Amino acid sequence: MRILLCNDDGIYAPGISVLHRAVSDLGELRVVAPNVERSAAGHAITLADPIKCTSAEKDGVFFGDAIGGTPADCIKLAVCALMKDAPPDLILSGINLGSNTGISVLYSGTVSAASEGVILGIPGVAFSLCSYVDPQWEMAERIAAELTQKIIENPLPPGVLLNINMPNLPYEELSGIKVTRMGRSRFIEKFHKRLDPRGRTYYWLDGELEAHDEGDDIDIHAVSNGYVSITPIQMDLTAYDHLAYFKYLEAG
Amino acid sequence: MRILLCNDDGIYAPGISVLHRAVSDLGELRVVAPNVERSAAGHAITLADPIKCTSAEKDGVFFGDAIGGTPADCIKLAVCALMKDAPPDLILSGINLGSNTGISVLYSGTVSAASEGVILGIPGVAFSLCSYVDPQWEMAERIAAELTQKIIENPLPPGVLLNINMPNLPYEELSGIKVTRMGRSRFIEKFHKRLDPRGRTYYWLDGELEAHDEGDDIDIHAVSNGYVSITPIQMDLTAYDHLAYFKYLEAG
Repeated sequence: MRILLCNDDGIYAPGISVLHRAVSDLGELRVVAPNVERSAAGHAITLADPIKCTSAEKDGVFFGDAIGGTPADCIKLAVCALMKDAPPDLILSGINLGSNTGISVLYSGTVSAASEGVILGIPGVAFSLCSYVDPQWEMAERIAAELTQKIIENPLPPGVLLNINMPNLPYEELSGIKVTRMGRSRFIEKFHKRLDPRGRTYYWLDGELEAHDEGDDIDIHAVSNGYVSITPIQMDLTAYDHLAYFKYLEAG
Repeated sequence: MRILLCNDDGIYAPGISVLHRAVSDLGELRVVAPNVERSAAGHAITLADPIKCTSAEKDGVFFGDAIGGTPADCIKLAVCALMKDAPPDLILSGINLGSNTGISVLYSGTVSAASEGVILGIPGVAFSLCSYVDPQWEMAERIAAELTQKIIENPLPPGVLLNINMPNLPYEELSGIKVTRMGRSRFIEKFHKRLDPRGRTYYWLDGELEAHDEGDDIDIHAVSNGYVSITPIQMDLTAYDHLAYFKYLEAG
């Protein structure tokens, strides 16, 4: 079992080291991750620029390939070039600092690494820890290990990735694990308008996720109730329920 | 009717001027678009950096706000800051040079501008012209005008955007208009491996879209048969058909 690790917090972030420890017994690991933080990269890819590839060390030993590109670039490069002769059997992304629930899934580089894998025909799982403060890495490592083991034993259906979000609690205080759907939500945006030292305007984006969904089966609610949330994600965005409505556009 | 125009080819690209001409009679226009090309930006947003905003002229007159960010940034900034007091009623994105069919929808900055609108509660439409060579702008302008008029008369359902792809043909040679679904597809990736002048390795991504879908109701086939393709798109990525299968992960 060859396992490819990626993230969007960058190869030097602690979360990917935790993930590495969590699954080191489950297969042969290879790390290919952005050389700097690429949070909120969405499914961006790099077409108009070259993609640099260097070696990254941790604790004085080789840890992985540091890529001058987005998470989706890393997966494409790993699968189609670096590991071309022996492609990965599974892609794990994370462990991200901060939640990737609700509409955040669209902006998330962590999820896009896993979804790029699925597009290329390789099962993918994205892990996020829902806090920036006092991260419970011990819990996250244990959950990542347990779930990855189960996922290897019960292969993912083609075209589907899992988006896993963990509440920031000690393992013993978790309420359990819930299979959820992606909650309808939006960010309440706030732009800070400022002047640079030369008097030119710039904006800085701030915002908070707001659920627009009352269902108790959504990812956002599961996490806020202490559950590890697991959402199966697919990439067909067609609004099937509305295909018939738009037939009027076909006329003349 | 206030109409916000955006794109991912950058504010100085010809396509957004064509779109501007196409809909100038249909409402009060405002252009907020990236200051440089941001193709393949996906749904990336800028969190860790300031977003600069300057004025762009075309033919010596003010054309719009040029934003140092992604298409999704432009829409967020326009709706939540620049146009806060009088938000747009409709967002039009494009006209993109190159197709945004099949899995390209995920990578497309053009589509992400429209989908960011829908997330913020404002109807959105993305227009793409499926060629980089000898673009048939006259046809594209006419189609954009006709379809926008119809869409204004028949409001979009909430949560749905339209992804419109036009074959690169003169207006008279179009086969018609088809409502389609997003075709299952992937890029056949090719990485060119090269050395920089200092002997360091870099890669450059190349690739071609390949349909994995035999349906004659998909976007890719519609365009290659000379039809304007219109795909309704929504943003819930939950793989509903697989929720039951993954219940095994909830145990223990």
